[in-house]
Amino acid sequence: MSSASFVLALSCPNRPGIVAAVSTHLFERGCNISDAAQYDDTLSNQFFMRVVFDVDGPTLADLRAGLTPIAERFGMTWSLRDRAQRRRVMILVSKFDHCLVDLLYRRRIGELPMDVTAVVANHPREAYAHVEFTDTTFHHLPIEPGAKAAQEAQILRLIEATDTEIVVLARYMQILSGEFATALAGRCINIHHSFLPGFKGAKPYHQAHERGVKVIGATAHFVTPDLDEGPIIEQDVERISHHDTPDTLVRKGRDIERRVLARALAHHLDDRVLLNGKRTVVFRD
Amino acid sequence: MSSASFVLALSCPNRPGIVAAVSTHLFERGCNISDAAQYDDTLSNQFFMRVVFDVDGPTLADLRAGLTPIAERFGMTWSLRDRAQRRRVMILVSKFDHCLVDLLYRRRIGELPMDVTAVVANHPREAYAHVEFTDTTFHHLPIEPGAKAAQEAQILRLIEATDTEIVVLARYMQILSGEFATALAGRCINIHHSFLPGFKGAKPYHQAHERGVKVIGATAHFVTPDLDEGPIIEQDVERISHHDTPDTLVRKGRDIERRVLARALAHHLDDRVLLNGKRTVVFRD
Amino acid sequence: MSSASFVLALSCPNRPGIVAAVSTHLFERGCNISDAAQYDDTLSNQFFMRVVFDVDGPTLADLRAGLTPIAERFGMTWSLRDRAQRRRVMILVSKFDHCLVDLLYRRRIGELPMDVTAVVANHPREAYAHVEFTDTTFHHLPIEPGAKAAQEAQILRLIEATDTEIVVLARYMQILSGEFATALAGRCINIHHSFLPGFKGAKPYHQAHERGVKVIGATAHFVTPDLDEGPIIEQDVERISHHDTPDTLVRKGRDIERRVLARALAHHLDDRVLLNGKRTVVFRD
Amino acid sequence: MSSASFVLALSCPNRPGIVAAVSTHLFERGCNISDAAQYDDTLSNQFFMRVVFDVDGPTLADLRAGLTPIAERFGMTWSLRDRAQRRRVMILVSKFDHCLVDLLYRRRIGELPMDVTAVVANHPREAYAHVEFTDTTFHHLPIEPGAKAAQEAQILRLIEATDTEIVVLARYMQILSGEFATALAGRCINIHHSFLPGFKGAKPYHQAHERGVKVIGATAHFVTPDLDEGPIIEQDVERISHHDTPDTLVRKGRDIERRVLARALAHHLDDRVLLNGKRTVVFRD
Repeated sequence: MSSASFVLALSCPNRPGIVAAVSTHLFERGCNISDAAQYDDTLSNQFFMRVVFDVDGPTLADLRAGLTPIAERFGMTWSLRDRAQRRRVMILVSKFDHCLVDLLYRRRIGELPMDVTAVVANHPREAYAHVEFTDTTFHHLPIEPGAKAAQEAQILRLIEATDTEIVVLARYMQILSGEFATALAGRCINIHHSFLPGFKGAKPYHQAHERGVKVIGATAHFVTPDLDEGPIIEQDVERISHHDTPDTLVRKGRDIERRVLARALAHHLDDRVLLNGKRTVVFRD
Repeated sequence: MSSASFVLALSCPNRPGIVAAVSTHLFERGCNISDAAQYDDTLSNQFFMRVVFDVDGPTLADLRAGLTPIAERFGMTWSLRDRAQRRRVMILVSKFDHCLVDLLYRRRIGELPMDVTAVVANHPREAYAHVEFTDTTFHHLPIEPGAKAAQEAQILRLIEATDTEIVVLARYMQILSGEFATALAGRCINIHHSFLPGFKGAKPYHQAHERGVKVIGATAHFVTPDLDEGPIIEQDVERISHHDTPDTLVRKGRDIERRVLARALAHHLDDRVLLNGKRTVVFRD
Repeated sequence: MSSASFVLALSCPNRPGIVAAVSTHLFERGCNISDAAQYDDTLSNQFFMRVVFDVDGPTLADLRAGLTPIAERFGMTWSLRDRAQRRRVMILVSKFDHCLVDLLYRRRIGELPMDVTAVVANHPREAYAHVEFTDTTFHHLPIEPGAKAAQEAQILRLIEATDTEIVVLARYMQILSGEFATALAGRCINIHHSFLPGFKGAKPYHQAHERGVKVIGATAHFVTPDLDEGPIIEQDVERISHHDTPDTLVRKGRDIERRVLARALAHHLDDRVLLNGKRTVVFRD
Repeated sequence: MSSASFVLALSCPNRPGIVAAVSTHLFERGCNISDAAQYDDTLSNQFFMRVVFDVDGPTLADLRAGLTPIAERFGMTWSLRDRAQRRRVMILVSKFDHCLVDLLYRRRIGELPMDVTAVVANHPREAYAHVEFTDTTFHHLPIEPGAKAAQEAQILRLIEATDTEIVVLARYMQILSGEFATALAGRCINIHHSFLPGFKGAKPYHQAHERGVKVIGATAHFVTPDLDEGPIIEQDVERISHHDTPDTLVRKGRDIERRVLARALAHHLDDRVLLNGKRTVVFRD
């Protein structure tokens, strides 16, 4: 007999009885709920729920079969995951490696429970000589002039070949094609080095310095075909001063970027992030 | 037929079936859950739940009667409140009036949905000449030497006579007797002008300056007989620097104190604060 | 013989010898520097300095006469002020009075050392029935259709008649004409209820909700003819969540707005804010 | 002829003429001040100053000779450093390597301009198998039962042999002897994993959970013989909630610890940290 922990995440149009139906079903199957959160968006009339439960006996397939009629009755978008199954994550990176190094470190010490299927870079392996990759596969997939589509196709094939579920743009600094962004909808997280919607596009720290803001930030968001317009998962900020130059903003920003990206990914790995139109519901721990 | 909004807050030893029992009961009574949050403290094995729901028909008494068997089955500590019923709050104040002024302002513009049963001060009405009391009753209850017990008894009688549910110490700067604190257990909120547990007791900003901290804070907590040791509801902080003197800390602290106290009270008025031993569960909005 | 405290604020193109010239002059005049800060903007090559000093004997005019040759030698933009002389401030307000109430409170307890020359509102006095004006003059200057220029002219005459030095738009919610903004250049502070440059223009909290940001903010800035584009003096933020609606953002925003505006004004009253092109230098305490 | 950048840091009893004397001397030597900050502690009557300047010609010895009479006249404690000369830093570490990894990363990308003279650990090299040491010397100096004094003596000899100027306790988790702490007075920085003075001593995150605080923090301070009582250099905090367990606090705390320690060290490397009795003056960038 197996004992396991599962996480159920769902959204659907709101109407009475959803919590009762789900919780009663889980109770009758012998599941013990250890964490639950709901959110009812009264403006969009959408309902969101995340339930973590332990159960002895039923397999993932059993549980899915049991929940399917309820999901259909309420018109749910839903996922059910065995928490022992680590998510498979691919990391894309360009020249700046601070987010990459940070994510690999957090994985190593067990903070981010994920398998890194590959690190893909548009710079060669030597550019990351001092990064501790342990046994992570590294792919150098440069973008040849006029051949971005080919490189993106390579990445997509690699995603498929490695059963990658989540793609992280860890300061990947490349503008993705609409096709590529669409193919990864809902499962690709980018870190933008500004407090969006301020300073979209290139060189945001230079823009921030130019504008004379007193606080800078970083934004982790899902990638969509609209550049820097995807649903925001997490943001954080730091106070700055007139002493700061674009260079010191870049330095201070690194700290914000890496912690914002790590938090967003941690939440996503734990099925805490649900899409709500162009926004997200994040059930925080 | 009446249509109303209610808030149910409960805690009990954790075991399977609580959410199912409560949500099914509410569903069968025709209640529509608009907000719900649970928390399972795996260390203490206590379960906490807050549910907001709308319903046409049943009165508060009807709903209480229906929930009582469930509450008894699970050994719940619970409250059910009609949200249209404003909480009755008494404010105690000493010389510094910034928290008092702030609470009265927030009540006036509808941010804090409460009836202020009285403002009690140990200074005379003239000391608050510029405070806009509107129609709030003011009581000057000074503490005569050796007669603290008598003054506290006066306050307790006033609490009873005015059906006061919640007492707020808005920088009340008096050390309460153990009896008084015990009498108000779980319904008296104090604002302490330090980031507890640092700098308990008197003159915390002077202590903070002396110690050379780089961040100061304020703490809203339930009052208990142990001074500054009650369950913490809310804390916040501000960065300071070597430029700060005790005087500028007092000034900066005022802003932290008033917003921390207001947040704590707002959460408490909305039944978001549940006791968990010496700690609190705060279901934030 | 008079003993007084002065504050000197200056900016000029950077070149060696500025600090030496100023500090030696002040030393030779018997001045005792109690606070000083400099900033050298290496990108614009501008130098900024603020000096607070005490001296027995010389009058403001004496000191001005003594500093003038140095100021001319280095091409300084400068101001010298007797700190005992309270700045004269006019407050403009519309429907929302939280910033107004806050500024008046801070003035009353001595936190903001200023004389309020007038409160000007485009709503009648009754709209502020519960505001404690003490002895502050109130002017109802409504904007009649097609007559904004006339109303602005009234305000400008009032500014002149009252020797107003600083104008504060405390949620004044009117778009100023370019002429009016230009007339008040460098001495008019606005509070914008967003974290600029995000969400310029109307209804920023609704924009923020729509965009799904996880942090909101407020911005105090000098008014310029370009709406919401003036030099930023101070910004601050608060974390929000998916639970927030535009209404709760408005509520949370009030707290940010009033503290950001109060800080910006406090710094300006203390000659801590210097213009650096489209940005500001703020010598913080 | 050499062109170089220097940083002068000094403190002395306050009296008129210090800024004039220093700035005039530097001006006459042909020095160009690029950054300067002063602070006059009116409570202790101590004056603090930091000046960064560029000059062609004079050597460090020349400049020292020129400044010595001024320093003697005003009774200064002072240091003058050629900024091209990288500080020599030793890092002590125990089991948890997040601060170590972070400091080494920041050194590698040039954010922390320092030479790491050695990493000293009380665990063997294998315990840090995945740390990228590049060419940093590693010493395993375990503490044998009853032989702490011997191990500390080894470290002191190593400090001397390597010309180490600054010692960083990067979660070193050993209680230092009074002799050792005294020997390193003013040049040894510790990171304590709580917001001091709250939760001194062992297991602060468990203490924080037990107390039910709503915000946790970390503190970088100079080491003194009084455990966790040394002058504080930098602190920062994060908001937590009732969901947090001691384990999640440890996880969230790692992020605070590493950024607080890195900031404190960065400030110290840049001569921004001056002792003011039991407190510090930190001239922030």
